[in-house]
Amino acid sequence: MPELRKDPIVKSWVIISTERAKRPHDFARPKTEKVSKFCPFDPGNESTTPPEVMAFRPANTKPDTAGWWIRVVPNKFPALNPNLELKKLGHGIYDSMVGFGAHEIVIETPDHNATLATLDYKQVEEVIWAYRERYNALLRKKGIKYALIFKNYGADAGASLEHSHSQIIATPTVPSRIIEEIEGSKEYYKFRERCIYCDIIQEEKMENTRIVEENEDFIAIEPYASRAPFETWVLPKTHQYDFGQISEKHVKSFANILKNVLLRMRLSLEDPPYNFMIHTGMPSGEGRDYYHWHLEIVPRLTKLAGFEWGSGFYINPTPPEEAAKYLKEVDISKVLQP
Amino acid sequence: MPELRKDPIVKSWVIISTERAKRPHDFARPKTEKVSKFCPFDPGNESTTPPEVMAFRPANTKPDTAGWWIRVVPNKFPALNPNLELKKLGHGIYDSMVGFGAHEIVIETPDHNATLATLDYKQVEEVIWAYRERYNALLRKKGIKYALIFKNYGADAGASLEHSHSQIIATPTVPSRIIEEIEGSKEYYKFRERCIYCDIIQEEKMENTRIVEENEDFIAIEPYASRAPFETWVLPKTHQYDFGQISEKHVKSFANILKNVLLRMRLSLEDPPYNFMIHTGMPSGEGRDYYHWHLEIVPRLTKLAGFEWGSGFYINPTPPEEAAKYLKEVDISKVLQP
Repeated sequence: MPELRKDPIVKSWVIISTERAKRPHDFARPKTEKVSKFCPFDPGNESTTPPEVMAFRPANTKPDTAGWWIRVVPNKFPALNPNLELKKLGHGIYDSMVGFGAHEIVIETPDHNATLATLDYKQVEEVIWAYRERYNALLRKKGIKYALIFKNYGADAGASLEHSHSQIIATPTVPSRIIEEIEGSKEYYKFRERCIYCDIIQEEKMENTRIVEENEDFIAIEPYASRAPFETWVLPKTHQYDFGQISEKHVKSFANILKNVLLRMRLSLEDPPYNFMIHTGMPSGEGRDYYHWHLEIVPRLTKLAGFEWGSGFYINPTPPEEAAKYLKEVDISKVLQP
Repeated sequence: MPELRKDPIVKSWVIISTERAKRPHDFARPKTEKVSKFCPFDPGNESTTPPEVMAFRPANTKPDTAGWWIRVVPNKFPALNPNLELKKLGHGIYDSMVGFGAHEIVIETPDHNATLATLDYKQVEEVIWAYRERYNALLRKKGIKYALIFKNYGADAGASLEHSHSQIIATPTVPSRIIEEIEGSKEYYKFRERCIYCDIIQEEKMENTRIVEENEDFIAIEPYASRAPFETWVLPKTHQYDFGQISEKHVKSFANILKNVLLRMRLSLEDPPYNFMIHTGMPSGEGRDYYHWHLEIVPRLTKLAGFEWGSGFYINPTPPEEAAKYLKEVDISKVLQP
């Protein structure tokens, strides 16, 4: 049974995921990359995943058969389990919780070889619709406090299957990074009565040295204090708290900028491994006036993260102004569909 | 010129390290590992590093010549530079500082093939003495607020040279993780008037399921909310705030437990890559009653850190009780010198 445990000092939570229990010999590093021919996410192999919780498919097709263009299934080795009863427990001086929650996989395309950077805009929109639908559905469950939408792309970013997919983990507690961001924004708001993300967007537009891409509704920037080379944030240009309320128009423009930014990275950085995650407000509504949802992309180009995540101290060898310049200069027009 | 920049939302600092400026093509991933035969840390090659700032060597040998058993040199590509003048600057809504600080390398042995796990106890003691000496020397410099002692072992943990070495980065600001730990300990102290680390040690001794190794002065445990498989903390058993004040007796017992723990990892996890860092109190003395210095070791066995450092949400597939059991059961007696 998975278990959530709280660090008694800094108060962040950890999932101890017994579904994936690893013994020392499981960590032996393979000398060559395993290339598996069978893919559970390919059309025709639907019976090899847990039954789908949602799919975009023609009305005349049955669940868990081919024909879908987006398919959402529970993770076969879930970090958290929706069938447990939420219970908070004390353990000596420590706090824990039963590993209640959910862990779903969004299969972004039936095409085994496609990626978010190469799919057409329409299909990326469908991915965003799937995020929105599952996000809202998961938050309706009793006991769920947050849902993290994220993607690991490439083995070096933690992806264990190469077929293009994202993940959603719904948790009975809010991730510490989100709490820090909400608290940081609150402090700024107290002084200025403005959203710090809105002010950042204004500053970036004025300075115009860290913008990668912009459309009517969204802006993609290299943040001023980028923790890693080519770290990129995508933000809605007007104040928006909740990703779950994203409008139809914004789904379109968000898909557009996301695909373009990923394509720029793919072309200039040779198809880099990356992680992205959506940081959105809490269902409780706390911070509605001062927190601003956004997506953070971190290409995994350097290997320093281990030391850095232990100190909170980052060394970034690429100034964000240079990173923005490189990404902006990439000519993506040739590889986009008309 | 390196620059420090502050994240305006969560307030952590980032070093933008222009000494190591990287363009997109620098990130092209080599298909095979580069094996370089020349090592600047080998005896005889002293002239290929910046001049030493300290060495343990016989009285009749000259600086920057062979004969040393510990040698400390500035990093050839320093993240921070001691020759800059500390200046705090505003940049629109952002804060920055000139990249003032220091970045030194502790070469732990003249033997190119040795590691901290295989060196004899006496030599590991010498490494700890070097840490202590440079730590105190760096903190005497005006403008330095903290000094982080850390080690990246193995390419997957960020080491770019294989010759056994550690690093010290002295910064004009305190790393955010340290601030979080000090604040967390303070909160606990307010309630109970006890150091949380002292209480953790007591709890762990009582429960006796997560202890890896113990001697008269130190204890090594897998923390209750371990963020990664085989994460291990080494703590002094009595309350101690400042690593810089470590006594001669404790240097001996600290070296002993550190070598033993690393040897256990080496034997049970097939010489894993790892990071370790010493978390110590601040020179200002803030938290003297409730903060407790310790060393954190994180083997780099899983690849999930990228997503996780972006959310503060960790998924650990190995319960710390199991990890402790494996490490404890390793028979290290055969490979230890008598």
